[in-house]
Amino acid sequence: MMKRFIFGADYYIEYLPADRLETDLTLMEDAGINTIRIAESTWSVEEPREGEFDFTSVIRVIEAAAVHGIDVIVGTPTYAIPAWLARKDPSMMGENRFGSRQDMDITNPTYRFHAERIIRELVSRTAGYANVIGFQIDNETKHYFMHNERVVEGFRNWLRERFDTIEDLNEAYGLHHWSNSVASFEELPDPTGTVNGSYGCAYEEYRRHLAAEFLLWQSDIVREYKRDDQFITHNFDFDWIVLGTEKQQLGRSWGMQPDLNDYEASKAVTLAGTDIYFPVAHQLTGIEIAFGGDLIRSLKKAPYVVLESQAQCFTGWLPYPGQLRQMAFSHMASGARGMMYWPWHSIHNGIEAYWKGVLSHDGQPDETYEEVRALGAEIARIAPTVYRKISGSGKTNRIALVVSNESLTAWKWFPANKELGYNDIVMEYYRALYEENLECDVIYDRELEDSEEAWSRYEMLVFPSLYTAGDELIAKTKVFVENGGTAVAGFRSFFADKNIKIRSGAQPYGLTDVFGVSYSRWTRTGDTCWAELLRPDKAETLHPMTDRHWGEHAAVTCNDYGKGKAWYIGYHATVDELKEYIRKAAEGAGQKVPDCSWPLIRRRLGDLEFYFNYSDETISFRPEREAEETVRKDLLKGTNIEAETAIELPAWGVVLLQAGED
Amino acid sequence: MMKRFIFGADYYIEYLPADRLETDLTLMEDAGINTIRIAESTWSVEEPREGEFDFTSVIRVIEAAAVHGIDVIVGTPTYAIPAWLARKDPSMMGENRFGSRQDMDITNPTYRFHAERIIRELVSRTAGYANVIGFQIDNETKHYFMHNERVVEGFRNWLRERFDTIEDLNEAYGLHHWSNSVASFEELPDPTGTVNGSYGCAYEEYRRHLAAEFLLWQSDIVREYKRDDQFITHNFDFDWIVLGTEKQQLGRSWGMQPDLNDYEASKAVTLAGTDIYFPVAHQLTGIEIAFGGDLIRSLKKAPYVVLESQAQCFTGWLPYPGQLRQMAFSHMASGARGMMYWPWHSIHNGIEAYWKGVLSHDGQPDETYEEVRALGAEIARIAPTVYRKISGSGKTNRIALVVSNESLTAWKWFPANKELGYNDIVMEYYRALYEENLECDVIYDRELEDSEEAWSRYEMLVFPSLYTAGDELIAKTKVFVENGGTAVAGFRSFFADKNIKIRSGAQPYGLTDVFGVSYSRWTRTGDTCWAELLRPDKAETLHPMTDRHWGEHAAVTCNDYGKGKAWYIGYHATVDELKEYIRKAAEGAGQKVPDCSWPLIRRRLGDLEFYFNYSDETISFRPEREAEETVRKDLLKGTNIEAETAIELPAWGVVLLQAGED
Amino acid sequence: MMKRFIFGADYYIEYLPADRLETDLTLMEDAGINTIRIAESTWSVEEPREGEFDFTSVIRVIEAAAVHGIDVIVGTPTYAIPAWLARKDPSMMGENRFGSRQDMDITNPTYRFHAERIIRELVSRTAGYANVIGFQIDNETKHYFMHNERVVEGFRNWLRERFDTIEDLNEAYGLHHWSNSVASFEELPDPTGTVNGSYGCAYEEYRRHLAAEFLLWQSDIVREYKRDDQFITHNFDFDWIVLGTEKQQLGRSWGMQPDLNDYEASKAVTLAGTDIYFPVAHQLTGIEIAFGGDLIRSLKKAPYVVLESQAQCFTGWLPYPGQLRQMAFSHMASGARGMMYWPWHSIHNGIEAYWKGVLSHDGQPDETYEEVRALGAEIARIAPTVYRKISGSGKTNRIALVVSNESLTAWKWFPANKELGYNDIVMEYYRALYEENLECDVIYDRELEDSEEAWSRYEMLVFPSLYTAGDELIAKTKVFVENGGTAVAGFRSFFADKNIKIRSGAQPYGLTDVFGVSYSRWTRTGDTCWAELLRPDKAETLHPMTDRHWGEHAAVTCNDYGKGKAWYIGYHATVDELKEYIRKAAEGAGQKVPDCSWPLIRRRLGDLEFYFNYSDETISFRPEREAEETVRKDLLKGTNIEAETAIELPAWGVVLLQAGED
Repeated sequence: MMKRFIFGADYYIEYLPADRLETDLTLMEDAGINTIRIAESTWSVEEPREGEFDFTSVIRVIEAAAVHGIDVIVGTPTYAIPAWLARKDPSMMGENRFGSRQDMDITNPTYRFHAERIIRELVSRTAGYANVIGFQIDNETKHYFMHNERVVEGFRNWLRERFDTIEDLNEAYGLHHWSNSVASFEELPDPTGTVNGSYGCAYEEYRRHLAAEFLLWQSDIVREYKRDDQFITHNFDFDWIVLGTEKQQLGRSWGMQPDLNDYEASKAVTLAGTDIYFPVAHQLTGIEIAFGGDLIRSLKKAPYVVLESQAQCFTGWLPYPGQLRQMAFSHMASGARGMMYWPWHSIHNGIEAYWKGVLSHDGQPDETYEEVRALGAEIARIAPTVYRKISGSGKTNRIALVVSNESLTAWKWFPANKELGYNDIVMEYYRALYEENLECDVIYDRELEDSEEAWSRYEMLVFPSLYTAGDELIAKTKVFVENGGTAVAGFRSFFADKNIKIRSGAQPYGLTDVFGVSYSRWTRTGDTCWAELLRPDKAETLHPMTDRHWGEHAAVTCNDYGKGKAWYIGYHATVDELKEYIRKAAEGAGQKVPDCSWPLIRRRLGDLEFYFNYSDETISFRPEREAEETVRKDLLKGTNIEAETAIELPAWGVVLLQAGED
Repeated sequence: MMKRFIFGADYYIEYLPADRLETDLTLMEDAGINTIRIAESTWSVEEPREGEFDFTSVIRVIEAAAVHGIDVIVGTPTYAIPAWLARKDPSMMGENRFGSRQDMDITNPTYRFHAERIIRELVSRTAGYANVIGFQIDNETKHYFMHNERVVEGFRNWLRERFDTIEDLNEAYGLHHWSNSVASFEELPDPTGTVNGSYGCAYEEYRRHLAAEFLLWQSDIVREYKRDDQFITHNFDFDWIVLGTEKQQLGRSWGMQPDLNDYEASKAVTLAGTDIYFPVAHQLTGIEIAFGGDLIRSLKKAPYVVLESQAQCFTGWLPYPGQLRQMAFSHMASGARGMMYWPWHSIHNGIEAYWKGVLSHDGQPDETYEEVRALGAEIARIAPTVYRKISGSGKTNRIALVVSNESLTAWKWFPANKELGYNDIVMEYYRALYEENLECDVIYDRELEDSEEAWSRYEMLVFPSLYTAGDELIAKTKVFVENGGTAVAGFRSFFADKNIKIRSGAQPYGLTDVFGVSYSRWTRTGDTCWAELLRPDKAETLHPMTDRHWGEHAAVTCNDYGKGKAWYIGYHATVDELKEYIRKAAEGAGQKVPDCSWPLIRRRLGDLEFYFNYSDETISFRPEREAEETVRKDLLKGTNIEAETAIELPAWGVVLLQAGED
Repeated sequence: MMKRFIFGADYYIEYLPADRLETDLTLMEDAGINTIRIAESTWSVEEPREGEFDFTSVIRVIEAAAVHGIDVIVGTPTYAIPAWLARKDPSMMGENRFGSRQDMDITNPTYRFHAERIIRELVSRTAGYANVIGFQIDNETKHYFMHNERVVEGFRNWLRERFDTIEDLNEAYGLHHWSNSVASFEELPDPTGTVNGSYGCAYEEYRRHLAAEFLLWQSDIVREYKRDDQFITHNFDFDWIVLGTEKQQLGRSWGMQPDLNDYEASKAVTLAGTDIYFPVAHQLTGIEIAFGGDLIRSLKKAPYVVLESQAQCFTGWLPYPGQLRQMAFSHMASGARGMMYWPWHSIHNGIEAYWKGVLSHDGQPDETYEEVRALGAEIARIAPTVYRKISGSGKTNRIALVVSNESLTAWKWFPANKELGYNDIVMEYYRALYEENLECDVIYDRELEDSEEAWSRYEMLVFPSLYTAGDELIAKTKVFVENGGTAVAGFRSFFADKNIKIRSGAQPYGLTDVFGVSYSRWTRTGDTCWAELLRPDKAETLHPMTDRHWGEHAAVTCNDYGKGKAWYIGYHATVDELKEYIRKAAEGAGQKVPDCSWPLIRRRLGDLEFYFNYSDETISFRPEREAEETVRKDLLKGTNIEAETAIELPAWGVVLLQAGED
């Protein structure tokens, strides 16, 4: 497939106010940029009038790039429709007005007709170029909350397949509440008016499926034209959240994507792609890169490519000198086989004008360009070594964090606390793992439902408030612990079934014997927004509840069950508390817990060890080693390091050590 | 009428995921639950298709309850329409989509036709059962902001009856302002677009009337079927407010209901009902129970029933052990002749799933059930005694707090401060009374307008910022004080007429001689959002204004007028300041001011005294007594208490003393 | 033209609940009120039914006023349409409902037909009266965000005139971004749906132009009837902002008006008018009066009239005793030739009921009236002197603050910080000037583009973040400095062209040699939301960046260029920092910087000096004087002051000194 580590940038010749293609390609080549991504979002240039195609700029860029040894990823332009298409069938815009992007109905037949045609035109004309190494289908696809009678009709049909009778549906969703039950599937009302969480969540699940189906459809079209050595990718993204203390920020990639069924959609690509954005400067912690990488890599259990990475100040903050380098190596350390900046050249009009690229608006090489250039040289030197690791066994983790699209949506309907989303909980549990340098995969509950192999891959599964869980997942979790696995569950896990019906039995449902604990009641306290009044049965109480009115109940328990262990954290714990619980659980599960922790982050890739200093001060440390090791290679400096030597890792620095032979 | 104190729960067999009727009735019987409320909200079960009626579940529950000695209140299901009805005439939903409740147009003819039919069917089939003790019409009825051309047309006709000519209306509402005057009633514009507070408030008043008229209509239908020994009730509720510091709370019952004319609607019922919700745990103060009870009891000057009371954590907080008991006795102490939990069984789907019942989702007796059961036994023991008091003279207070629907709406248009609503002021004045253990009725200004008797019932009237007051009320207030009554008025009282036209004379309008003070100007200061620049005439200045720029003006005054006294509080005072003023006024009015105060609350019912400890610490106190008394009965313990003995009232405890013979 | 200083009030006989015309005119005459403004907003009284005109009340007021020696300004009533007109053509209301004001489409043909007719009727009937001194056209006109297909069609035609081809437009606005480019002008989409800032800003510019065109149209109609000695005025207003710490305030006049092209519209009037509102009591600083006056006076470089000024508590705060006097003299000191209170009589219904007038709702003379009356006498005494100064050379400043409508709109699309608007920046720069008593004009960038004379008028130009600047303005700025002028530019000045396209060259664009500095990158830091990474070339670094990661870059620079100086402030500085920079720049530009500063404000008018004490404490000071002066006249006291004598200016006091002969 790919022959080298991708170090690239997105390039939009259509957006530039002046023709500077040669200038740009020369600057890229000098900086070690070996790949560009083009064409996505430029439909109105490629088909300015219905049926009039013009791929001049696309072809010109591909051919010019080839001269500079630069590869090309061609993106289908479908996420931004041209004005004429919106005018042709206004129904595809619903109540939205034309002018933005990704707000049309991607199931609209007119849209699909024209999308298919432009995809076929574009891919057929570009697939033959040797330096076109792959295609990206659409971009950050979501369901865009599309909603109209046709979509609802599809939803009703989807429900017909799920339920034998309408009474089964009434019962499963509890529609008798407030007279919402219906006498036939036809009578099912517009789901956007419902106050029934089960019905509302089902609609979201259906729409996430529609978004995934759209990508599968695009993939099938592209497959008709692409060469075997060309990949199909998509840039999966994440929830987009502005954390409380960052009012002036645009937001950040944070937790799983709520509006696409990633797990289903990942079957549409041969190479998972992603974009991950996050605050930099003093706010850079590396957690978004690590979480995003762990989730996207886990989608296909294979290397992935970071299709977009920020160069300059998307949130108003410019990376400190050194941070661009840190970001690139962080992606590598997560198992990425490529990393591209978005965009090459800063844009001069429009909403993305302040999402700056490698070059500033003046198009001249400045300090940021020079940093990228130095990094390009460094990557060129070590990439072959790293690339072999990534393409080989890659990352193999024995811990997995289990996330769930249904739990996320259900949580929106039934939050433990209005300001605490499911992704916040997920990220709190992930942070505890990340900052303690306990590497993990991030997997979907659906994978555990579908695959027997997934259960054997891990020794420890962490469930951060897995609100919805089906009977089968519960039964398999029981077997997993029985056979020696370690389960760590946060409050409200296994609470409702997949129809978001709260279970009628003792909680945690179906697993009271595994966790050795049960509860039926919960409360807020002065310290936490959610505390279950745990009644330990066989389990050991690690911490009792601290509120004196409820002191007879437990807060955290651990139980031996079969050959394994099951931990239950019955309240919304702080990250520091989670670190304590998860470290203990990991030790109990036989995991080696590193003795370094954030801001010193260690990430492993085969026998490579990346160390990152996410702080403003130098950190001095001695890497852990196996007994027999005495020397390691410092790959970036090209020197050897003796076992006794402490490494001085400067602020925002990276060191890359190799224990074995290449 | 009723033969015993109602201790009950709401029961929705339709919502339950499994049939457990016998289990539930047995658990109820064991817990002393003697009444259930059923049927309201279950229209789609009772009439799953237009004209197909099925009351199987209703009849089954009534008959099974009878076996367990449990009475039944049957609720009309009209507040939640079925899907087929919304589809039949979409106009009844206005711009709302089907799926919630209480968002339809309750004056829509199609709605009325079907509502009448289901009421007739339901009531005619259930009225004959001996254990059906009464009917609830609709539920927490409001006007739901219904708005369409037909409603506006009705509003125009209603205005035609109020005003002789359109020019009278132009004048009364000041419509010449900004060219809003019209040449005919037909031209009156959609009132939801107006910026004229008089016109806007009139529309609200009309819609509050429509909601009341709807209840009167339902009542008339039910009367055709019910037995003489069966009551008609309705659960009146309150404003629903999230106080500033409770972001994570769902809200609480707080102040008077803004969207129903309670006073008019109370004529539709033979037994006033209510539901009162409030925060518990460390936030439980008892004020919502006391205010709600004082208002609802005053509607009919008779005992009432609490149709819904929370059992578990509706705001996320679980009542501390002991608080459920405290809540039940608090209702009793306010003069309630019954109290029902909402609901019996926690619900497994939908928006009320976290508004938990007596039983948790697992349906098993747990600690909460056990508390209810112990309470049921206690109530069974003392209820006959208490019930006799309630049914006898009941509560008779000599102080009344006067509230006004028109003032509330006018205040929304013209707040003294954007974050300070009329109900906040009402509750500040009520809190001052409540925490000083000065019991009062809460009455509507409309009652004072309609009834001569009301004026003779009280010795002291408190007007918390009665913004709107008609000429007659003003004149009668004058007579009231002249004849020896005490009036206490907050800032902006008697400010505008009933058309929300600010008075053209000196303020407080029509009462400058009674209060002995006048003003024409006001200002904010560093301390308060509203301070009238009072110019005392005859009145004594209790406090001057504290802002040095305005020090020559008074802040609080007291005036002797005729045989009475009139107090004027010309600024937005703190609750502690109000306590001081109101205590002094009560003493001046000859009221006995208790020497205990919150968190020790005393409530009287005939010769019974309830004491409540709303705190986390034990309180030691000696009850006040008449000279001749030496012994009282502790009804809950069944012991006698000597005069000298201090009572140790534990945290969140209740003691119930009886001075006389039963 | 005018023969005396206008001291007036707005009078709405139509709004009053009782006929008290004679009472009011007598009270006015006693208070020295010599002018009233009438008729605006009373269309429904003047034309209660289509085509039925009734000017009885207008004529009656004019004639009665004449008897009392009171002049009249007649306002066209067009900003508040009557109900019948809204019903006649609902399209003029767009999605708004009738009932407010200034929310109709002022380009609607039906509206224009009726507006023209009422203007002709009103003006023709009143122009003949001797005491009618002028006409006000409309009121606080803005574009009201009018939006419909006809407006958009006009916008497309306006764009056709700006751009030769559609491709020129695509290019200038960067519409290729996200497939927004179009193949013809017809295809240009609804601009309210766009995410393209250039296209969105152009639509705002067009609508600002439509609002100005509307005033020019009214002016032409009035000109057909008015006498030569009658003026045409309009009350231009400002942005309306609630500052962060004033949640309970209604807001204040703050910065330039965003929704009208003032500069264009000023050609419609012969006398600029304005209304300026602001917080009083402890919050009164005088800055709004000064800024508003400096901007409105600069529109026509001539005296102006304050058509509305608050008397009582529009924000809930009443002016402290003395502040009304201070406000009146502040307007005078800015060059106003008149000042009118809004309104005379407080209004009893509707949304302006709490925007109180000179008289309170009781219509009786109270303390506020007495203050106005004393002031009226004082003004009558000194007005002839002051009036001669105002009408003579007036104010002539050598410093100008340059503001820009396009920059303001562009800033909304691309704020440096979500909570920091362009007008905030403008007011920060203005505050630095104001509080240091450096008087200035406030001029539009458009004037600099249009007029050669404007460049020669000033010695120092201050550009507070002039985001958009055309090539010509840039070139002329260069010449201005070359020839000896001083330029002071804030961060992001000269950043984008007039199409809001960010410049492709080094920043500050086109002026890197003038400022001797360049940059391509910027960042937030812990201290500021925006800091450009300045690379000084020839410029002197006044302050380096304080963030240690960026310490090699400059924050503030000064450069000698030609005979002049150019200062560049590359970050969002605090007001205290701005004061330092601007004081230095003014000294460098040969301006005399006073040694007094806020809260002691000095404003000059010819040889008159007004001193204001904007504080709660007495201030003692010695006025600066020329060498030869030894005595000045205190005009308000009618005494002389020796050079050595310190003046004791009491809290919220005014002193008015005259150096020369009258």
